Amino acid sequence: MLKKGLTAAIAVTMTFMSTPFALADEGMWTFDAFPTARANQATGARIDQAWLDRLQRASVRLAGGCSASMVSPEGLVLTNHHCVVSCVQELSSTQRDYVAQGFTPRNRSEERQCPGFQAEVLQTITDVTPRVRQAVGNAQGSARVQALGTTTAAIEQEACGADATLRCQVISFYRGGQYKLYRYRKYTDVRLAWAPEFQAAIFGGDPDNFNIPRYAIDAAFLRVYENGQPARTPDHLRWNPNAPREGDATFVSGNPGSTSRLLTVAQLQTQRDTAVAIPQIQRSELRGRVIRFAEQSPENRRISTDLLFGIENSFKAQYGQQLALNDPQQMAAKQTQETELRRRVARDRRLSREIGDPWREIEAVQPAFRELFLPYRQLETSAGGGSQLYGYARALVRAAQERARPAAERLPEFSESRLALLQRALFEESQVYPALEELQLGFWLSKTREYLTVDDPAVRALLGRESPETLADRLVRGTRLADPAVRRRLFEGGLPAIQRSDDPMIRFVLATEGLGRNARSQWEQRVSGPTDAAAERIARARFAIYGDQVYPDATFSLRLSYGRVAGWTYRGRTITPFTRIGGLWERATGQSPFDAAPRILAARSRLDPNTVFNFTTTNDIIGGNSGSPVVNAAGDVIGAAFDGNIHSLGGAYFFDPAVNRTVVVSTAAITEALTDVYDQDHLVRELTGTRG
Amino acid sequence: MLKKGLTAAIAVTMTFMSTPFALADEGMWTFDAFPTARANQATGARIDQAWLDRLQRASVRLAGGCSASMVSPEGLVLTNHHCVVSCVQELSSTQRDYVAQGFTPRNRSEERQCPGFQAEVLQTITDVTPRVRQAVGNAQGSARVQALGTTTAAIEQEACGADATLRCQVISFYRGGQYKLYRYRKYTDVRLAWAPEFQAAIFGGDPDNFNIPRYAIDAAFLRVYENGQPARTPDHLRWNPNAPREGDATFVSGNPGSTSRLLTVAQLQTQRDTAVAIPQIQRSELRGRVIRFAEQSPENRRISTDLLFGIENSFKAQYGQQLALNDPQQMAAKQTQETELRRRVARDRRLSREIGDPWREIEAVQPAFRELFLPYRQLETSAGGGSQLYGYARALVRAAQERARPAAERLPEFSESRLALLQRALFEESQVYPALEELQLGFWLSKTREYLTVDDPAVRALLGRESPETLADRLVRGTRLADPAVRRRLFEGGLPAIQRSDDPMIRFVLATEGLGRNARSQWEQRVSGPTDAAAERIARARFAIYGDQVYPDATFSLRLSYGRVAGWTYRGRTITPFTRIGGLWERATGQSPFDAAPRILAARSRLDPNTVFNFTTTNDIIGGNSGSPVVNAAGDVIGAAFDGNIHSLGGAYFFDPAVNRTVVVSTAAITEALTDVYDQDHLVRELTGTRG
Repeated sequence: MLKKGLTAAIAVTMTFMSTPFALADEGMWTFDAFPTARANQATGARIDQAWLDRLQRASVRLAGGCSASMVSPEGLVLTNHHCVVSCVQELSSTQRDYVAQGFTPRNRSEERQCPGFQAEVLQTITDVTPRVRQAVGNAQGSARVQALGTTTAAIEQEACGADATLRCQVISFYRGGQYKLYRYRKYTDVRLAWAPEFQAAIFGGDPDNFNIPRYAIDAAFLRVYENGQPARTPDHLRWNPNAPREGDATFVSGNPGSTSRLLTVAQLQTQRDTAVAIPQIQRSELRGRVIRFAEQSPENRRISTDLLFGIENSFKAQYGQQLALNDPQQMAAKQTQETELRRRVARDRRLSREIGDPWREIEAVQPAFRELFLPYRQLETSAGGGSQLYGYARALVRAAQERARPAAERLPEFSESRLALLQRALFEESQVYPALEELQLGFWLSKTREYLTVDDPAVRALLGRESPETLADRLVRGTRLADPAVRRRLFEGGLPAIQRSDDPMIRFVLATEGLGRNARSQWEQRVSGPTDAAAERIARARFAIYGDQVYPDATFSLRLSYGRVAGWTYRGRTITPFTRIGGLWERATGQSPFDAAPRILAARSRLDPNTVFNFTTTNDIIGGNSGSPVVNAAGDVIGAAFDGNIHSLGGAYFFDPAVNRTVVVSTAAITEALTDVYDQDHLVRELTGTRG
Repeated sequence: MLKKGLTAAIAVTMTFMSTPFALADEGMWTFDAFPTARANQATGARIDQAWLDRLQRASVRLAGGCSASMVSPEGLVLTNHHCVVSCVQELSSTQRDYVAQGFTPRNRSEERQCPGFQAEVLQTITDVTPRVRQAVGNAQGSARVQALGTTTAAIEQEACGADATLRCQVISFYRGGQYKLYRYRKYTDVRLAWAPEFQAAIFGGDPDNFNIPRYAIDAAFLRVYENGQPARTPDHLRWNPNAPREGDATFVSGNPGSTSRLLTVAQLQTQRDTAVAIPQIQRSELRGRVIRFAEQSPENRRISTDLLFGIENSFKAQYGQQLALNDPQQMAAKQTQETELRRRVARDRRLSREIGDPWREIEAVQPAFRELFLPYRQLETSAGGGSQLYGYARALVRAAQERARPAAERLPEFSESRLALLQRALFEESQVYPALEELQLGFWLSKTREYLTVDDPAVRALLGRESPETLADRLVRGTRLADPAVRRRLFEGGLPAIQRSDDPMIRFVLATEGLGRNARSQWEQRVSGPTDAAAERIARARFAIYGDQVYPDATFSLRLSYGRVAGWTYRGRTITPFTRIGGLWERATGQSPFDAAPRILAARSRLDPNTVFNFTTTNDIIGGNSGSPVVNAAGDVIGAAFDGNIHSLGGAYFFDPAVNRTVVVSTAAITEALTDVYDQDHLVRELTGTRG
């Protein structure tokens, strides 16, 4: 599934730039540099600027890591079920499990708010590269990282100010090759309008994830509200309930989270050996612990469904990346590309004087990367191991510390322009499951001790004479941070309130978050700062030589991909691009996770076995694209992208046009499900414009 | 810990030969080619052939994967606690947990038999290379593998016949460069004479495993019996209760399980990307499941202690191997060595005509390795996932099938000479824990589905329409194979009894074990057969060029390493070679796994804080060496090797004399523990020859 994972944070810092040439249907293009002519030629469509503008205004980013689209004039938003499952779980309780049973309101008044959800629609793109370049100047190492953070935060603050309906974000493209200000209309009142049962959305579960054939209604509807009323969204996509045919043009508009397609070969080797491999073995153990936790009781299963799904989804995505990085042929191809680029740079004396040898600089950074990766990960980027309570505590402690500092010295994530989302996360109600909190916090402490070793000073500082398990239990049992009122008081009380607090989680974080700051500042000084500085010059070289044939690596910002409906052939076996509802009855064994959802089973006689269920296309997408509208040449929405095939996972590093495929749930199947399974006629009327 | 892991089976098939030169204290030398002069020069000792002979006769191999030594004239055997923990667990029950409490008989009559244990003492070594070469001839692929298996089995059968006191084994050295017949005196009545508490043996648990400083009494005593009486073992080692000093010579005599030091670079890359990496992520998830299983109840913890220890031990050993394989410098050094050897071969026209280009042949095999590794592993080498009941069923089914075939067509592991150990495993009483069986069997089925994918014909054949969990439950609940009488009847009934059986596990294995045979025969045809054929020629080239400066890779056969007591320096930090009992009191936090064992805590006032507890040496050892006697220049035993430091784990591929260290529990600490903690004065008297 293509939701942007939590681990993307690190990947992004190492993301680079684009392939030298976009081949076939390859490319995650920005809307301000879309190759319209090339796309029309490749697909036979005839799209134009107006078509692009309309699609941009209907495309939605969900701040949690997904994509979506406006599909009615009254704020109805189509996305994937797996993009809203955290909300469905939040709205559920031991008594009423919407995850298992689906959320099927009879009308709008039953739609329920999703805490923390934010929907964003891109309004304008402005190039701010010169200003950023000037501000950063020749700063090196962590000073460079700080200058960049301060400047981009200032630009955002100037552009959006305190306007509660706007979000401004300066985004790096081509790894510092360009900086652009993306200005979004934002919606903070986002409600759940429909979600099928988990088992309908994710039929086949982990075994079928990233595999084909597929029978998943991985779709859901949200609705954005303004002032308590459904928002007016005239620029929505037209709902087309007819499935496409093989070969039809398809466009996917969404927010791919992170790709690393033009890392240098030295960086790819470090990815393979360290940055992908080590988190993966930790994730695998956590997966085992959570699976066993879920098996202990029905309630355990209920509260861990979303967490386990997320872990397994990341696991498989990373597994696909490992396969790609371990493919000697792909690595050899990367080496050839790099050698060719360096050769062409070397031939251009002015260019090579200007950029020096950034490849060698990056290679020289790799030993520091390998040395510092684990402390940086364990103490900073993955600190707390996903524990929500730890996350609250660290946000509160750091917000108090940082807000007391002048803008130019703050950690960038605590600059004024970025506090709004943080405050919502802190102040809004959110369910906390202590048993899971202990599991995650204890796991993090235990792995930190294991990987940094018992006698490491940071480990001694974290644990004292406690064990990971007893410490996690004490903190989770003792803290009062599950209460949003407590969090609000601590936030508003600032540093004095934090320092006075006797909350054990606050005290723990206050005593130990500095370990993470140290690891981070070493990382910026010796790894990310020097890498970014060199990467910017590689980007410059690439522009000089390949011009506009390159597209930027993914950065969870709006992109457009063109392609067509197609299957593929692998090792002599051909996979057709469509599954149909009738195929579900054969695949459903009745045994989890191949048990069809009860409501779908009950509707069997009403469902047309020939309706297209899921289909595959050649579009170039990746995690973060989940929920992206798939539109046809006319601009009608014909599905929601929810997955890639197993070959698409290598897309983090390489796009292989022969086998890389996007997987889509069709509007045809959604419409039929709404009508014949879930009694959502009011939604169908709204979607098809037949509402009275 | 250095017990030979279960996964060594696959590693062995890929093991190769030795480094071109044995550097510093490097080398796992066979007793028939020990470089006595060099060892004396390096260590300052003055050992001779008589010294070597005596040590050989006192060295013991434990068939389960460990090493040991005779330490009294009455069959007393020193080994590690972690080498006997499976027996301690077997002797325990819900009522009486010897793992937690230790096993401390007051006299010999309370010593208890360890089911399935077998102690072996090497008697003679005979070169059988010409006969094996002739029999194999020019056979290729799986025919080569079969011819090799049949011939070595025939040699063994001729040499040992039906003599119940002997075991004969033809062992490959230098990956087919040599074949030698190892003839052992074997003891099948092996009893537990003393074991400390698990917590005393493995203080610091997984976090401290492979780390220093260390405070582990990882020692235990077995006793071999003949005709119901303690065996007479006049050739035992002299027990020396005094700790050595820094720089003293040390010799380690034991059975290193498997090294892969001279794989070609192409093979090392495949190890890194596939053969090590993928089992490791599976193992990591299993670890998580078992940890959570153990946390569910005290009884769960009790029955899973040994399993979890084994998983974590393998996990860390493999992690160390991954670090080594991911080290660009080490890989570059391997490339340099290989290039040099190939260059020298190329310069010798006769030699290069004789051997051809086996490096290229091996490189050409790698795509098949990567393609076939997972089916071969999931369906054959790891089939059953460690479930004992599945293991019984497969052994019974295949034994019945194979015994009905002529010798030349049998799977080698079912040849006459190799049936004795199998029969013991089948006929002897052994505790089976259904909850763990379901966990392991279900995990295997689930991972097989995940890694081979849902629609793979083998997966469909395994699961039918059941889920991994329901199938595992049905088989474990329904089978009667936990009863040794049932197993004996099925074995003795042969194929008709198997085919008539309605035992669900037997039926399942009968229906599906062919999947494993198919995967295996493809593997032999396309991977192991061609690899072995090429490797034999690389061995020949290496002999021709480097002569006797090479030692063979480890093959769980008796080896001798020379070295000295020494610490090491890493990243500017120097680690001293000794820990002393007093250090334990500082490290013991009281929190698991840093809680000192209660009996040791209770004896604190009687224990000398200055007694050497554990110490480190430069000896070259690896998993399988666990329990090896460490002897001084005089040939006295001064400790038992139980571990390596974290740097030693890369020893599977590279020996780094600067940092690779063996970790030893001293006879000084064992003697003090026997006297002052465990009231084992009868053993101390026996060890020190002061017995009446």
